[in-house]
Amino acid sequence: MGNDHEATSADAREHPIEGVSCPVSIPTNTTILMGHGGGGRLTHQLIEQLFLPVFSTPQLNARHDGALLSLPPARVAFTTDSYVVRPIFFPGGDIGKLAVCGTVNDLAMCGARPLYLSAGFILEEGLSMDTLARVVASMQNAARECQVSIVTGDTKVVDRGRGDGVYVNTAGVGVVEHDLTIAPASIRPGDAILVSGDIGRHGIAVMAHREGLEFETAIESDCAPIAAPVLDLLREGIPVHCLRDLTRGGLAGALIEIAEAAGYTLVVDEGAIPVSEEVAGACEILGFDPLYVANEGRFLCILPQQDADAALSILRKHAVTAHAVCVGHVSDAREGVVILRTSIGASRVLDLFSGEQLPRIC
Amino acid sequence: MGNDHEATSADAREHPIEGVSCPVSIPTNTTILMGHGGGGRLTHQLIEQLFLPVFSTPQLNARHDGALLSLPPARVAFTTDSYVVRPIFFPGGDIGKLAVCGTVNDLAMCGARPLYLSAGFILEEGLSMDTLARVVASMQNAARECQVSIVTGDTKVVDRGRGDGVYVNTAGVGVVEHDLTIAPASIRPGDAILVSGDIGRHGIAVMAHREGLEFETAIESDCAPIAAPVLDLLREGIPVHCLRDLTRGGLAGALIEIAEAAGYTLVVDEGAIPVSEEVAGACEILGFDPLYVANEGRFLCILPQQDADAALSILRKHAVTAHAVCVGHVSDAREGVVILRTSIGASRVLDLFSGEQLPRIC
Repeated sequence: MGNDHEATSADAREHPIEGVSCPVSIPTNTTILMGHGGGGRLTHQLIEQLFLPVFSTPQLNARHDGALLSLPPARVAFTTDSYVVRPIFFPGGDIGKLAVCGTVNDLAMCGARPLYLSAGFILEEGLSMDTLARVVASMQNAARECQVSIVTGDTKVVDRGRGDGVYVNTAGVGVVEHDLTIAPASIRPGDAILVSGDIGRHGIAVMAHREGLEFETAIESDCAPIAAPVLDLLREGIPVHCLRDLTRGGLAGALIEIAEAAGYTLVVDEGAIPVSEEVAGACEILGFDPLYVANEGRFLCILPQQDADAALSILRKHAVTAHAVCVGHVSDAREGVVILRTSIGASRVLDLFSGEQLPRIC
Repeated sequence: MGNDHEATSADAREHPIEGVSCPVSIPTNTTILMGHGGGGRLTHQLIEQLFLPVFSTPQLNARHDGALLSLPPARVAFTTDSYVVRPIFFPGGDIGKLAVCGTVNDLAMCGARPLYLSAGFILEEGLSMDTLARVVASMQNAARECQVSIVTGDTKVVDRGRGDGVYVNTAGVGVVEHDLTIAPASIRPGDAILVSGDIGRHGIAVMAHREGLEFETAIESDCAPIAAPVLDLLREGIPVHCLRDLTRGGLAGALIEIAEAAGYTLVVDEGAIPVSEEVAGACEILGFDPLYVANEGRFLCILPQQDADAALSILRKHAVTAHAVCVGHVSDAREGVVILRTSIGASRVLDLFSGEQLPRIC
């Protein structure tokens, strides 16, 4: 464990979290002790001196067992994800940014406006306080960018060798301010399938960093919030049928899940799927198929063909979706599978990979 | 790790979860593999064959990235806790029951009616599927008892030696159907301090089981949902000022946190604090002070003195709060401390313990 913590601490220096003024008053040259999870004086110090100064919200400052929220009258979306990515810091992001963006993005995929997050930490005894402070600061930075508040939290400490530095769980609450049913069941034959940008950056960035691989051009994770362009689509009245972010399982995984749930066959053109040269090259060297590599700032949007151009021009106004393209359509076949039309004119059915492609990627 | 998993599996047999019909179709004599967290076929199987058959709710069955909730127009309470208790199964409960009751109880302490939970699992490679199935079934049993639905979830898998079988995070959403401000800031000099039952059972039950200690009478955890009696108090119009559940840090920790936040001095009579003979005896042998031992089904209620008798008779109608008593009062001194009047007539100021009393207790 000692080695790993040194590695993440070195990583933190290597990829500084910029723009963070971190008013943490706990000494950052200390480490997490079992007592920080015991509910006594050390837990109290950790909350008062590290978490509260950074995540300063009225709800947290009330120091209650939960947060009271005022929500506009609307349907509410609720989601959760735990984050166990290794290493904690990687090019283009870190576990804190990921824990905020990932859950915000899941809310966006429900067509919801993200409002509030919870944060649950499982810390390993021996974690450096500096690393924790950087993760917390990064979460707050991302929350500010996403216009969400971290309003309630929890910290547990596990013995050395029963964790891996820090695991983070976030749950999110958002409001749905439209009447659409955004779900696989809403897709129809003829619908267009859009992808919001080039795929595979997150998985390759984390993998390359973990394995110490160096490419000519550094590949950065695409980890980013995608709520703004999605809310823009909805505000402009685009009748979105289905949204899905491309995380574990990659583009292929998301397409297959939707096809199975909807019962329609999806047809995608391999040549239309955007993959950067760097990612394509890295995938070739590493033996990965970019279709199955994880993303953390990309999504699928399925909508009526006649609305595709309007949707693309809205998406292209946002930096994070500037390279959105149409990659396929929903066919009227009811096999519930995904057919990939390859560049050489052949067709094959995509299957979920059966084991692990990249462990601990998010 | 291997030893630990065998131990928890043995524990599962020793303390069967009664009344569970567990329609799990995944072979339970298998173990968790890294691929179960990879987003591919194995993840899909785990969700379809283990989680969905047990946590069967319309929101989960929609297989979306989040759940859509219909909430009555009211203030909303939101809370989260992670659970890392060791061992996973203990007399009177297990990590699954704890993960549901703990978060439901935090919502109740906001004066909210608990409605929905999320469930995030961090599984260690090698965890027996049987153990996971039992934890999941126990969560569903507890959710049914608490009248909450588990509507969204997530599963991650970490390498062997980077976890401890299973960690669970739950976040909860509830509605606040009254106009009270239930918080330390609402307490007033003269208020009565009620405790909902005898203290220290959870900590001693887990500790004794972990260390293989045997007492003449088996001590069971008090792990239980406490929302029903709290909602009954509110429904009957009792003007509750503050609620706090007694978890890590015990009764002393909860009192000290409230005193510090409110700025008033709380005075409690040691002789009035209910501690069972078994717990008192075990504490004497183990060198613990029951005031600092964790509970998972006990809470503090601070309210005007003239409402104390009415509140006690409401609480005593519920089995979980049948032995509620008044243990002290809020003084008009503004030191923000807790004074314990001991049985021999002396007084001492209670302090938070500075390290860990019982690690991994919840």
